[in-house]
Amino acid sequence: MNEKLLKKYAIIVAGGSGTRMGSAVPKQFLKLNGLPILMHTINKFDDSKIGIEIILVLNKEMHSQWNELVAQHNFTTPVKIAEGGETRFHSVKNGLALLKDEGIVAVHDAVRPLVSAKTILSAYKTAEMYGNAVPAIPLHDSIRQIESSKSIAVDRSKYCVIQTPQCFSTEIIKRAYLKEYKFNFTDDATVVEALGEKIQLIDGSAENIKITTPLDLTVAETVLKNRAIA
Amino acid sequence: MNEKLLKKYAIIVAGGSGTRMGSAVPKQFLKLNGLPILMHTINKFDDSKIGIEIILVLNKEMHSQWNELVAQHNFTTPVKIAEGGETRFHSVKNGLALLKDEGIVAVHDAVRPLVSAKTILSAYKTAEMYGNAVPAIPLHDSIRQIESSKSIAVDRSKYCVIQTPQCFSTEIIKRAYLKEYKFNFTDDATVVEALGEKIQLIDGSAENIKITTPLDLTVAETVLKNRAIA
Repeated sequence: MNEKLLKKYAIIVAGGSGTRMGSAVPKQFLKLNGLPILMHTINKFDDSKIGIEIILVLNKEMHSQWNELVAQHNFTTPVKIAEGGETRFHSVKNGLALLKDEGIVAVHDAVRPLVSAKTILSAYKTAEMYGNAVPAIPLHDSIRQIESSKSIAVDRSKYCVIQTPQCFSTEIIKRAYLKEYKFNFTDDATVVEALGEKIQLIDGSAENIKITTPLDLTVAETVLKNRAIA
Repeated sequence: MNEKLLKKYAIIVAGGSGTRMGSAVPKQFLKLNGLPILMHTINKFDDSKIGIEIILVLNKEMHSQWNELVAQHNFTTPVKIAEGGETRFHSVKNGLALLKDEGIVAVHDAVRPLVSAKTILSAYKTAEMYGNAVPAIPLHDSIRQIESSKSIAVDRSKYCVIQTPQCFSTEIIKRAYLKEYKFNFTDDATVVEALGEKIQLIDGSAENIKITTPLDLTVAETVLKNRAIA
């Protein structure tokens, strides 16, 4: 494949209904510095200036709310919409169905608006070379493994925390998503790994948090404030 | 043992020199709402009103700085001081040497000032019944296990994140700390487990964070602010 001609896609997965937020507004629509989280996230991919075609996967019942937000915020970043599925797996599959050309696709959580340009570029570049790229950071907490009625200590240095964007060759990920859904498909790396592919880890960033609680939203606001000062 | 007569201790471990904070002030001395983090933490155990004798383990070169802070903040909570050791293991061991009576001892990170009274009371109570108690919360992140040159997906529902205070029968933990130090002794549960003891997990709290970065400090401020409003 000629790298120069490789098409670049990003599938932004916004399935969540935000129950953990204790809020009627789905978490991806909550405002961060006045702008819905999801718009921050989409803009991060558009701002990369490497010509990424963005596909937003959104549950059908949220489409009208999204359209209202787009009008209200004069949001002009081009986005194709796919319908959300029953699980994250089915949502990603619906997004993949919209990819027309071969290339590299990033799959990214809608509620990770703090992803850096560095991580985005590194993920596409590594996937171009190796077929996939998955950002990871060290696990700082002590963890224990639960086995039937007891728990055992495990060496945390042998584990890492996985983030998104996870990038893949479109050919590989489309083939991976032909498999039947399994409950242990918690991210795209797991699905692609089930094909027998070796997952390439790249450096993630502690700031690239997933916003799932009101406290996370405050953390995100602080990160943005600190970036504005720096 | 008669529960009523059981002596209660807390060893607050403040070994860190705060390099990850990018600050000259050790992280346990950084201010949270105007008061050094460590004082918040100590007060949480004193406020429990169950007669906990508090032992603070502090590196020798920080003792004078601590004394200055005590004077400056008119800090009157009674605390015995033990000297910090080369590793956390050696620090805890130095703290244990100051326990005169049999009973229950909590070992707690100095930089977890947001621990709740509920967690403290539950940890002592469970340790009185079962010999130990270790707070744990579910692991929300996707993790991968690193094995030689590759990483493999693991089922995160089979893991939990470990916090402090970890409570133990003084007899058991003292015996556990007679063992020689091993690099995989990352917390007290691991040391006690090496004796063959079964670890009792209790419910921890997501708010009981370990403050190790400037962002964590901001999160802690937010939690305190929200608690004040609630």
